[in-house]
Amino acid sequence: MSQLETAMGMIIAVFDNYAKADGNRQTLTKAELKTLLENEFPNFLASGKDKDAIDTVFKNLDENGDSEVDFKEFVIFVAALTCCCHKYFEQITAK
Amino acid sequence: MSQLETAMGMIIAVFDNYAKADGNRQTLTKAELKTLLENEFPNFLASGKDKDAIDTVFKNLDENGDSEVDFKEFVIFVAALTCCCHKYFEQITAK
Repeated sequence: MSQLETAMGMIIAVFDNYAKADGNRQTLTKAELKTLLENEFPNFLASGKDKDAIDTVFKNLDENGDSEVDFKEFVIFVAALTCCCHKYFEQITAK
Repeated sequence: MSQLETAMGMIIAVFDNYAKADGNRQTLTKAELKTLLENEFPNFLASGKDKDAIDTVFKNLDENGDSEVDFKEFVIFVAALTCCCHKYFEQITAK
């Protein structure tokens, strides 16, 4: 597998790994999303400053308002985050 | 780094690796995109059936019509492809 294929496979594996916790592999519940964010982005919520962070992220991700985050909603979130990281690295290397 | 952080880093690395060929790391030219697709998805264009495939992909990716594919346009493409792969694997495991 190429590097890009591997990365795509890893994103699918991460979603599947957390989504299957409640028996329904199709979607992430809010509890599953919380575990995913805590484990995959340990620094993201570690500050403890914003206790509503999970609620905010979940509400933004759950585009169709069904209280579940499906794969499409998840991958758009990952794409947006990756875009932010890329911008950050661009700024670093431009300095 | 977590699995998700690693995957995001790999997507950035792949883009950077091909985008820098012409000296401008910010965007992929059509030639750079062609090399990227040929190397990263060797089966995607291998059939040789559709010689206009690169043109079609490039036109679809270049959302703002500036004849360059920037990182945001690229990451949306990767997200869409990942979504298709996820659907495919879902169907496989549902059988």
